[in-house]
Amino acid sequence: MASRDAPTPDIPPELAEYRRSIDNIDSALIHLLAERFKCTRKVGELKARLDLPPADPAREAQQVARLRALAISADLAPEFAETFLNFLVKEVIRHHEGIRSGRA
Amino acid sequence: MASRDAPTPDIPPELAEYRRSIDNIDSALIHLLAERFKCTRKVGELKARLDLPPADPAREAQQVARLRALAISADLAPEFAETFLNFLVKEVIRHHEGIRSGRA
Repeated sequence: MASRDAPTPDIPPELAEYRRSIDNIDSALIHLLAERFKCTRKVGELKARLDLPPADPAREAQQVARLRALAISADLAPEFAETFLNFLVKEVIRHHEGIRSGRA
Repeated sequence: MASRDAPTPDIPPELAEYRRSIDNIDSALIHLLAERFKCTRKVGELKARLDLPPADPAREAQQVARLRALAISADLAPEFAETFLNFLVKEVIRHHEGIRSGRA
């Protein structure tokens, strides 16, 4: 029943409502991630200035343990929290290496 | 100068401060992700009940466009916002398929 102007087919109202909540949550996530990258950019600049290595396995192990515990308390799979952190750290290290090579 | 009780070596105070902010942001991210998965779990159950496919390319294209625009306004790389959404969607579809197969 979708018109030519509406490429998405009609969706159940209940699904539309969930999607509005997901969109709100995603907006919040994007803004928090923007803030997180502001912090990690500063960390990258500091590490380059002090000649510290981009990766820090001890710090990452602490973060994994902390986020797994938080995930459990929030009813989120701890494995997902760990995968998510690894995803972020990988991205951040890529940025740090860029900052470092930009100074070389 | 780290003692036996502190396996992490001494870190510059400026780095410790950034890390405290990153930890706060990560706590917020984990709680938002827990809430997002509550929504997508309900979506998965609804889709299984109504026999709708787990993936919805039109919806995902709308989400990508929306999050890229939000990222730009928040000074975050739009490519990262897209990679992040793909990461979440992949995880969600895996869950949806699990819900569906649990009903088969």
